[in-house]
Amino acid sequence: MRMVDLIQKKRDGLKHTKDEIHYIVKSYVDGLTPDYQMSAWMMAVCFQGLDKEETAWLTREMMYSGDIVDLSEIDGITVDKHSTGGVGDKTSLVLCPMVAACGLKVAKMSGRGLGHTGGTLDKLESIENINLYLSQQQFVKQVNDIGFALIGQSGKLVPADKKMYALRDVTATVSCIPLIASSIMSKKLASGTDVILLDVKYGEGAFMKTKEDASLLATTMIDIGTSLGKTVRATLSNMNQPLGNAIGNSLEVIEAIETLNGHGPEDLLELCLQSGSHMLVMAKQVSTIEEAREKLIHVIENKTALEKLKEMIKAQGGNEEYIVNPSLFKKSKYVIEVKSPVSGYVKDIAASALGIVSMKLGGGRETKDDAIDYSVGLILNKKVSDYVEENETLVHVHTNQSLPDALVNDIVNAYTIVDSKVDKPIIVEDVLK
Amino acid sequence: MRMVDLIQKKRDGLKHTKDEIHYIVKSYVDGLTPDYQMSAWMMAVCFQGLDKEETAWLTREMMYSGDIVDLSEIDGITVDKHSTGGVGDKTSLVLCPMVAACGLKVAKMSGRGLGHTGGTLDKLESIENINLYLSQQQFVKQVNDIGFALIGQSGKLVPADKKMYALRDVTATVSCIPLIASSIMSKKLASGTDVILLDVKYGEGAFMKTKEDASLLATTMIDIGTSLGKTVRATLSNMNQPLGNAIGNSLEVIEAIETLNGHGPEDLLELCLQSGSHMLVMAKQVSTIEEAREKLIHVIENKTALEKLKEMIKAQGGNEEYIVNPSLFKKSKYVIEVKSPVSGYVKDIAASALGIVSMKLGGGRETKDDAIDYSVGLILNKKVSDYVEENETLVHVHTNQSLPDALVNDIVNAYTIVDSKVDKPIIVEDVLK
Repeated sequence: MRMVDLIQKKRDGLKHTKDEIHYIVKSYVDGLTPDYQMSAWMMAVCFQGLDKEETAWLTREMMYSGDIVDLSEIDGITVDKHSTGGVGDKTSLVLCPMVAACGLKVAKMSGRGLGHTGGTLDKLESIENINLYLSQQQFVKQVNDIGFALIGQSGKLVPADKKMYALRDVTATVSCIPLIASSIMSKKLASGTDVILLDVKYGEGAFMKTKEDASLLATTMIDIGTSLGKTVRATLSNMNQPLGNAIGNSLEVIEAIETLNGHGPEDLLELCLQSGSHMLVMAKQVSTIEEAREKLIHVIENKTALEKLKEMIKAQGGNEEYIVNPSLFKKSKYVIEVKSPVSGYVKDIAASALGIVSMKLGGGRETKDDAIDYSVGLILNKKVSDYVEENETLVHVHTNQSLPDALVNDIVNAYTIVDSKVDKPIIVEDVLK
Repeated sequence: MRMVDLIQKKRDGLKHTKDEIHYIVKSYVDGLTPDYQMSAWMMAVCFQGLDKEETAWLTREMMYSGDIVDLSEIDGITVDKHSTGGVGDKTSLVLCPMVAACGLKVAKMSGRGLGHTGGTLDKLESIENINLYLSQQQFVKQVNDIGFALIGQSGKLVPADKKMYALRDVTATVSCIPLIASSIMSKKLASGTDVILLDVKYGEGAFMKTKEDASLLATTMIDIGTSLGKTVRATLSNMNQPLGNAIGNSLEVIEAIETLNGHGPEDLLELCLQSGSHMLVMAKQVSTIEEAREKLIHVIENKTALEKLKEMIKAQGGNEEYIVNPSLFKKSKYVIEVKSPVSGYVKDIAASALGIVSMKLGGGRETKDDAIDYSVGLILNKKVSDYVEENETLVHVHTNQSLPDALVNDIVNAYTIVDSKVDKPIIVEDVLK
C-alpha cells in the first residue's frame, strides 16, 4: 500500500477500505507516512468527506493507537459528557456532580483550554492543591468510592489524535466534520465509559456556525459511538452568547458553586437539567425525562450535588473549603465596569470576542505554553433579551492590570443592542439520539 | 501573513492577492513554509482552483524563483515548443530542425523521461559524444550561428517548480490544471523565448484524459503566456495510440531521421507540419498557415531540415555521422516479434502500457536514478485503423534480454482489435490561440 495512492483515492472521491484506514493511521503514528502526505490526505477528506463506515474505522484506529482506559472494575454504568467547547462553558462542574448525586458513576476526563475557549482542568486548578492526574487504579477506586472523578487525559491516550490534531491546526483542516467527530469520539471511546452525552454547540464563537452543521456533527458522533456499542445522545445548544454570566477560571468555578447552591444563571441550569436528564435515562436510572428532571432538581435543592463536588475535590487533594466559602478563591486586584454607550435590548453577544478578551487579560492561553491567571475574567451583567440603559454596566472586568481602551471597545462591540424587544433564546435547540 | 490563513482562504474558495501568492512561493522556496502546509495548500488548489490572475501570478513567482535565460543577444525571433508528454513523442527531434531550417531561432530546453514517457535528452544521448549541457553563452552563440540548440534545463532554472513538483508527485496533487499550467509555463517563460508552441496531448496515457481537460489546460497556459507578453498557441493532439511507430531512445531518433528524410510515419509528420506552421506564423516568417506548410514540406524535400539536425549535433560535439548512417546506433541483441492472436481492425493502442513495456526493457526510468539502455524499445507494425491477420506481427520488440511472457501479454493486451472497420484518427484535433 502506498500513501500517495490512498491520497489520490480520497481526492477522487472514492471510499477507503478498512485496511486502508488502518494503514493511514498506523503508518502516520509510526512515522512512516510524513506530515506532508497526511496533511494532503486530510485536506482531501475536508472536500470529499468520509462516509459512516470510514469515519467509524478511522475513529477505531485512532482509539486503538494508544492505551484504553479499563473501567470494568467500576460497579454500575459509567457515564461521561463532552462539550464541543464554548465561552463560559462550566457545564461539567455543575452537571457531573448533579448526575453523580443521582447515583451515576461519572468517570470524566477533561482537557485544557486554548484560544478563546476555556478548559475544565484549568478552571479546577484555581482550587488550592487539587490533583488532576490520578493513576488508572486511583481513578477507578475514586469512581467506585464516591461516584465521581474528574481528571486530565493521560498522555498515552489516543496518540494518533494528538499528532493529527497538531497537524490539522497548522494546515487549515480543523473544521472538517469527519475529522472533528473522529478526534472527539476516539478520545471518548478510549476513556472507556458506557454512556456518553455530547453537547454540540453552534453559533458565533462555536466550531459549528449553523444548526445544520452541528446536527451533522452530532449525528456523525452518535453513529460512531453506536457502531462501537456505546449509548450516545447529543444536545444541540445555542452559543449566540456566552453560557451563564462568568467567563474566566475561578469566576466560572464560583458560578458553578452558585448554581449547585440553587441560584445559578437560568441558561446554565437549564442546559444541565436537560443534559443530565438524558444521562439518567441513558444509564437507565429512571425511565422518563420528566422523572429524571425532578431527581436532578431535587439534588440541587437538598445540596447533595454540591456535596458531591466537594467530595470529589477533597478526594483529589483539593481544599474543599473553597466550595463552602468561595471568598477563598484568589481575587483580581481590580474590578472595572464597562458601560453601555446606548439604551436598548441586547440582541446578541459575540462569545468568541469576550473569550478573547478574557484570554488577553491572562485567563487563557494564546499558545500551549502560556501560564494562566486564574483570578481574571468577565462577569456579564446583561445577557440576550435584557434591557440596558445608556451608561448602565454591561460587564464587570476582573483584572490585575489596567484595562486598555482596545479591550473596552472589544467588549462594547461584542454586544449588539437594538431598539425592539428581543426574545429569550432557547438554550437546547434539539436532542439527537 | 500566516500560511495557515492562506490555506484556509483557498480551502474556503476565496481568491488570493498577488502578495499572498508571492508569500506562498517565496516562503516555500526559502524553507519557511514546511512541506505539510504547502501540500495542504496544493490539495486545496486541486479542489478550489486558481483563477486566471492567480495562475499568472503563481507562474511569475515560480519563474522568478531562479535564473532567467537571457536570449536578447540572439538576432531574430526565438521559438520554443513544449509537449505535455507522450509515448513515442519524438516531435522535438523533427519539428525543431524543420522550423530552424525555415529561419527561426530555436532555443530549446528539454527534460528527461520518467515512468512511461520518454525524454528528448535521453533520446539524444543515444548519439555518441553529444553534449547537452552548454553554458548560457555557448547556447546563445550556437542559436545565433546555426539557428538551433537543444540542451538540458539548467539546475538553477525555476527552483520553485522543482521543489513543488517533487512534493506534488508524492501527495497526489499532480493532475491539477492550474498547477500543471504554472509548472510548465514557469519553465518555458524562464527559458526566455518570444514564441512558444504547446502540444497538449489527451487520451489514454496522457496527463489529460479528455479533450475538454486538454483544452482547459491549453487555454490556461495560453492565458499565462499572453499575460506575460509572449506569443503562444497550442495544438490539442490525440494520444489514443503512440505517436509514430518507434518507442525507445535510439529507435525514436532513427524514426526522426527517417521522417526528415521524407519517409516518416504519417501521424508524426502531420503533427510536425501543423505545429511548425503555427510556429512560422507566430514568428511572422510567413503570413498564412498554407504558406508555412509549403515551406516546411520544402525543407524536408530538399533535406535542409535533416542538415540542420546534423549541424546541431555536430555543434554540440556529437557524432553527426549517426544522422547520415543510422546503422551506427547501437543495436539490441534481439528483435522479437509479438503476433496478433486474432484478425481484425486495430481500434486503439494503450500508449501508456507500451511505454511501460519499453521502460521495463530498460529504455526508461522507474526512479530518477535508473540508468537507460538506449538500444531497446518497440517498433509498432500495426497502428489504429490497420487491418491485422491472426499471427501477423503487431510489434517488433528490440531487447537485450529474453522477453518474459508477462511483457508479451502486456503488448498484446495494449491492442484493441475489432471486427468492423476503424477510421484513421485525426492527429491534431484543434489549435488554440
